[in-house]
Amino acid sequence: MPSMVFGECSTSTASRLFPMSLRKDAAILVRRLSLPRRSRASMVPLSSKTLAVGAAAPTSPPPSVAIEACAKVIDGKYIAKQIRDEISAEVSRMKEVIGVVPGLAVILVGDRKDSATYVRNKKKACESVGINSFEVHLPTDSKEEDVLKFISGFNDDPSVHGILVQLPLPSHMNEQSILNAVTIEKDVDGFHPLNIGRLAMRGREPLFVPCTPKGCIELLHRYGVGIKGKRAVVIGRSNIVGMPAALLLQREDATISIVHSRTQNPEEITREADIIIAAVGQANMVRGTWIKPGAVIIDVGINPVEDPKSSRGYKLVGDVCYEEACKVASAITPVPGGVGPMTIAMLLSNTLTSAKRAHNFQ
Amino acid sequence: MPSMVFGECSTSTASRLFPMSLRKDAAILVRRLSLPRRSRASMVPLSSKTLAVGAAAPTSPPPSVAIEACAKVIDGKYIAKQIRDEISAEVSRMKEVIGVVPGLAVILVGDRKDSATYVRNKKKACESVGINSFEVHLPTDSKEEDVLKFISGFNDDPSVHGILVQLPLPSHMNEQSILNAVTIEKDVDGFHPLNIGRLAMRGREPLFVPCTPKGCIELLHRYGVGIKGKRAVVIGRSNIVGMPAALLLQREDATISIVHSRTQNPEEITREADIIIAAVGQANMVRGTWIKPGAVIIDVGINPVEDPKSSRGYKLVGDVCYEEACKVASAITPVPGGVGPMTIAMLLSNTLTSAKRAHNFQ
Repeated sequence: MPSMVFGECSTSTASRLFPMSLRKDAAILVRRLSLPRRSRASMVPLSSKTLAVGAAAPTSPPPSVAIEACAKVIDGKYIAKQIRDEISAEVSRMKEVIGVVPGLAVILVGDRKDSATYVRNKKKACESVGINSFEVHLPTDSKEEDVLKFISGFNDDPSVHGILVQLPLPSHMNEQSILNAVTIEKDVDGFHPLNIGRLAMRGREPLFVPCTPKGCIELLHRYGVGIKGKRAVVIGRSNIVGMPAALLLQREDATISIVHSRTQNPEEITREADIIIAAVGQANMVRGTWIKPGAVIIDVGINPVEDPKSSRGYKLVGDVCYEEACKVASAITPVPGGVGPMTIAMLLSNTLTSAKRAHNFQ
Repeated sequence: MPSMVFGECSTSTASRLFPMSLRKDAAILVRRLSLPRRSRASMVPLSSKTLAVGAAAPTSPPPSVAIEACAKVIDGKYIAKQIRDEISAEVSRMKEVIGVVPGLAVILVGDRKDSATYVRNKKKACESVGINSFEVHLPTDSKEEDVLKFISGFNDDPSVHGILVQLPLPSHMNEQSILNAVTIEKDVDGFHPLNIGRLAMRGREPLFVPCTPKGCIELLHRYGVGIKGKRAVVIGRSNIVGMPAALLLQREDATISIVHSRTQNPEEITREADIIIAAVGQANMVRGTWIKPGAVIIDVGINPVEDPKSSRGYKLVGDVCYEEACKVASAITPVPGGVGPMTIAMLLSNTLTSAKRAHNFQ
């Protein structure tokens, strides 16, 4: 788990409810909200009826601020469930028609509790859609060769269509050489440089798109957010989220800018964006003043911050200060319940894609 | 050759010499030019003495506009010569110490005159630095297998360290499968998706960086242009220039934005840039008003436009309207004589790198 920080959006309750910097935007907000119905209808997800109910419940702001303005909540939990249902139906059809069941192998090395939880969740997700899961759990002091032996076995096993090595690996192992051992046809994480290269190149198609950024774009698609020609700012340039997210947005004809730790004026650049994907791992970094009125926000961050009111002593918040952002943005993912559930859904999707490709099943 | 267009920057001579939109920048320009010496010293290339002479001569604007303001000329021809001299010295040293001479193989299919010229220039450049060149010229109606046979031979030949297939290939050939046949260790063009993927990923190193974007960055380095933390806008997102140029700038900690044909407000975004790389193939597209005073401009475009005064009937211009841009920018590459000569220099550099790597020669 990342180190916990004390991360309130604002320094006092008063300023949190009515931040100085947002006051000047009030007129703009009112104008935005009084747009004709049609222009806001594009934010309604495909199954608008069900979603409207789902979106309203747990994530709506307290009544005291709701009267000011409130962005539509992009309900990742709901969309992920929808996708898992679709995958489930496809898995059944595949089994019926050609008698093949997709399979995902997960290799876990060591005793990290968080890793064990992630692996358990993946296994449960597989079960829920009918995908076979294979788990190998090796002790922390295993040799690199042991891991490579299992990878090699799964590479050759026709009942396995995706291979995941749970990270981080123990420090005595070379992560890169272990990941490189996974055959590209089963690299459902999509982190192989060959996949990333194809993602970057026009006219090429990656075998797999990395799960979290794929989940971000899927949320935009399912909420009917137009990407083509839009200004998109990605905050963070990690290999697993920021960079591939930017490449994906560009593939869909967005005009992208990438903000990172060396960027001198992140607020100014972010404020130009119609679409913001924040993936920097810093609690509440993106404030209300960073956001153009009407922007759509996908918040990838999941950061624990101290919370004396919680029995666990902490709560999870995103990279975006939700309570400020929801007054300025037109739509936003909550944390938790936004991008988080999408990652596993996309892993299942990639595994299904791999099995279909291996058996030439349409 | 790309289709020729009539591409004057402005519609009338008067507006070309004193564009309306630039008048308001006059005060800024004067302020910029009166900066203390130190702040402009960073633009002086490594061998400032020689270059200052070289830069002044052929590319300086006519006297009538020189009094207004003039950007430093980034002299690609001079820098390319400097790099070729360095390569030449390294090739000699390698031959002396381990008795190995780097070798570049070029495969040309068909009778296109422009392709034949490019291949001849590459061959001459190899000779000039002491790199061996191998040329295969196949007739237009060759079979794909014939080309693949030669590639396979060069892949296995230890005296060949780089393989180039001159594009375009005849239409009956599958370009992608032919290019994929070149072993990644000899892919001196750097276009293999695995190379591009490594270029995109933090903590990974490509075997080769594509020649033209590498040349752009080399020009910035040799002129002492700081990249870290700067706003950089790349215009164009091609696989061979725009996209890898953006990835290279990001590797050097610039904050990048990529402008392309679907971008709705290219001027506005470009105007935010400290560094502009224009690689769109459209004559004089980037006007003076698109440029932030003091920006550094690398113009990759080489576009033929009608020119009755020329004996050939045309002249070559860049993607940037030079006569307007040089009044606003702090430094700019001319066309021709800017990025053009750098591409072949970088090809030689990649071939040398490949030979050094193959023989573990430092």
